[in-house]
Amino acid sequence: MTSLALAQRSLADPSVRHPLWPPLTRGCPVTSTEDVAYPLDIDYDYDRVPADLFKGPAAHGLERWAPLLPPLAAPGLGEGNTPLVELPDGVWIKDESRNPTWSHKDRLNRVAVSAAVASGARGVVVSSSGNHGAAAAAYAARAGLPCAVFTSPYAPPAVASHLRAYGATVLTVPYESVRPLMRRIVDELGFQSVSSVTDTAHTGHPFGPEGYKTIAYEIALDLGRAPAEVHLPCGYGELLFGVAKGFQELARLGVTDSVPRVYAVEPAAAGALTEALRTGRPVARVPVGPTTAYAIDCEINSYRGVLAVRTTGGGARAVTDDQMASARAELAAQGIWCETSSAAGLAGLRAQGPRETGGPVVCVVTSSGYKDVATAKETFAPTAPDWDPIKEALTSTRPS
Amino acid sequence: MTSLALAQRSLADPSVRHPLWPPLTRGCPVTSTEDVAYPLDIDYDYDRVPADLFKGPAAHGLERWAPLLPPLAAPGLGEGNTPLVELPDGVWIKDESRNPTWSHKDRLNRVAVSAAVASGARGVVVSSSGNHGAAAAAYAARAGLPCAVFTSPYAPPAVASHLRAYGATVLTVPYESVRPLMRRIVDELGFQSVSSVTDTAHTGHPFGPEGYKTIAYEIALDLGRAPAEVHLPCGYGELLFGVAKGFQELARLGVTDSVPRVYAVEPAAAGALTEALRTGRPVARVPVGPTTAYAIDCEINSYRGVLAVRTTGGGARAVTDDQMASARAELAAQGIWCETSSAAGLAGLRAQGPRETGGPVVCVVTSSGYKDVATAKETFAPTAPDWDPIKEALTSTRPS
Repeated sequence: MTSLALAQRSLADPSVRHPLWPPLTRGCPVTSTEDVAYPLDIDYDYDRVPADLFKGPAAHGLERWAPLLPPLAAPGLGEGNTPLVELPDGVWIKDESRNPTWSHKDRLNRVAVSAAVASGARGVVVSSSGNHGAAAAAYAARAGLPCAVFTSPYAPPAVASHLRAYGATVLTVPYESVRPLMRRIVDELGFQSVSSVTDTAHTGHPFGPEGYKTIAYEIALDLGRAPAEVHLPCGYGELLFGVAKGFQELARLGVTDSVPRVYAVEPAAAGALTEALRTGRPVARVPVGPTTAYAIDCEINSYRGVLAVRTTGGGARAVTDDQMASARAELAAQGIWCETSSAAGLAGLRAQGPRETGGPVVCVVTSSGYKDVATAKETFAPTAPDWDPIKEALTSTRPS
Repeated sequence: MTSLALAQRSLADPSVRHPLWPPLTRGCPVTSTEDVAYPLDIDYDYDRVPADLFKGPAAHGLERWAPLLPPLAAPGLGEGNTPLVELPDGVWIKDESRNPTWSHKDRLNRVAVSAAVASGARGVVVSSSGNHGAAAAAYAARAGLPCAVFTSPYAPPAVASHLRAYGATVLTVPYESVRPLMRRIVDELGFQSVSSVTDTAHTGHPFGPEGYKTIAYEIALDLGRAPAEVHLPCGYGELLFGVAKGFQELARLGVTDSVPRVYAVEPAAAGALTEALRTGRPVARVPVGPTTAYAIDCEINSYRGVLAVRTTGGGARAVTDDQMASARAELAAQGIWCETSSAAGLAGLRAQGPRETGGPVVCVVTSSGYKDVATAKETFAPTAPDWDPIKEALTSTRPS
């Protein structure tokens, strides 16, 4: 199956189209303004999608969905095909920690690193708090490309080990130097950026969110229908956009009858998308306060997030660290250990309280508990081999 | 689909059969001797296996294979259905880090915790260096049972966080107190042990290795045939046994034409199975030297491992820490970051050098790099934002 990708088009005005190559990683050169760089989207020859594409079983590797993705020139790692796990109250958890580097970012990077390979890039560069960097490093390594990861000196120690394991060059320069250096690596060394290099809004890699569409395809295949609602952790909003687009494609192709309402859940310490929607602007910039949800504490939103919420009739809401910690504990008590940021989707759902949704509800859990800041900072006090306190601990504790 | 499990039978003499319930977690009461406790195995009504069981697609959750497993009374987490990832030389990696708690142990614990639930146990107790404990804790939490995990005070800090996340009671008593306390928890509190409580040989939970059979089923489904060889990290040998049994069942049921040779790879610092096979004994005890392969540095083997190697015409070999580190680096350069112990299978294969195998070769990678001792001990030195050293790093490095 070959890709049916046709062109890049501006998300500010879809009638403004550009050739598929090269990927316009700095936003649309036509519709962007001095204030806002608008990201690009990929258009496909939808009339030629094979009739049986959504009939067969799920399978590992994004090549399962090749017609509706840009060309997959980089070798895969069997990404995607993650399970839906049901909570006792019927809410479905899409467990994205079951990917090759244990986060949803593998889907994006299979596609974005493929774009780098197909366009003859000399390497891949990324700025990331952790998950994105690890995934980019893994796919770059597998494709034989060098990878530069700009990350925070405050990254959790386990994440530091992870980034380095794939042979990436890990760079912890001061924040204000990150994007200028990224652009220099792109311009002078011929690398391709798989994260945003623009200063005016988040544009990201135009091909990247296409990988997230496969989350929607898998959910619809598993449920046999589109859910009524999907709740997702929201940083820049690329995941949100990709999942919404995937469901919109399914409805357009007649595979499902409806499109779920897509809800963005941001940490209360940030909340750029909430602010953009509130003020009716394409992009908002907000101060970022302290939060343990380090994977999604973004000072700016992508216009993609605005579109995902608006076109699906969903919404954006902010949750506190306590609400995320509570959702994280609820998930762990069901055997799903995720990072705090990853629990934001469920935290947002729980904040709404019980109500009629009109169909299945899915929360996307994006990454593993191993990536949290507090992980690996615990210590064990040796236990004394005394029966009474052990008996007491085991007979007074009931996890649920 | 209901379970076709019929009985427990002694691995020392399969004609010695016991009812399916209760699970005989201390070995066979008939065939065990003063020197060796023999583990039990599960027999099925193979004539009643549905003809189409191996025809449908793979799916998440061991219920996919319910007829050939003991009853799955504990709720699942979509375990199993992990991908095969191909290395450049054609060797297949079965990536078991793609399970709910990111190791193969989820398959064992779905089955063993189910046995605890079905037999009315008041809780679950386990002794583990990490992976087994995390999986037991996750499945116990999901089933609403308390869980006691005996582990080493030297467990990696990230693993400590992981064990505690599911609400388990983590106990780090001195080594010599572990098994006596486990037996007391079983006898006095009505918990069921999902790891070995016997002093004379490793018996484990009789139902547990059944979960590992599904690795063989999935490999055969993906390859469309049985591989020629499977190379696995070997601690006690339960994984080895389960995978071998799964392939033997496939051949018995006419699904495949052959059974792969199963190779146990042990750390050179231990090597009980190698010693047992060399001396022709059912069980050997060996001194354990220092090794980073902490997940498989066992002082004693299970008789299961002897059977897996003998009945498949495979072998056991020991690899050094350097050989495992080299295999781990080979995997990371292909985007697969595993713990040192998990790279043992590939290390064993590489130690053999190139040769004709007569068919596909599979190495099982059991767990994620997040679980290694060295992980999270790295620190970042801040990078100066100077162009020349960054350029130098990115243009001199080629990962492969």
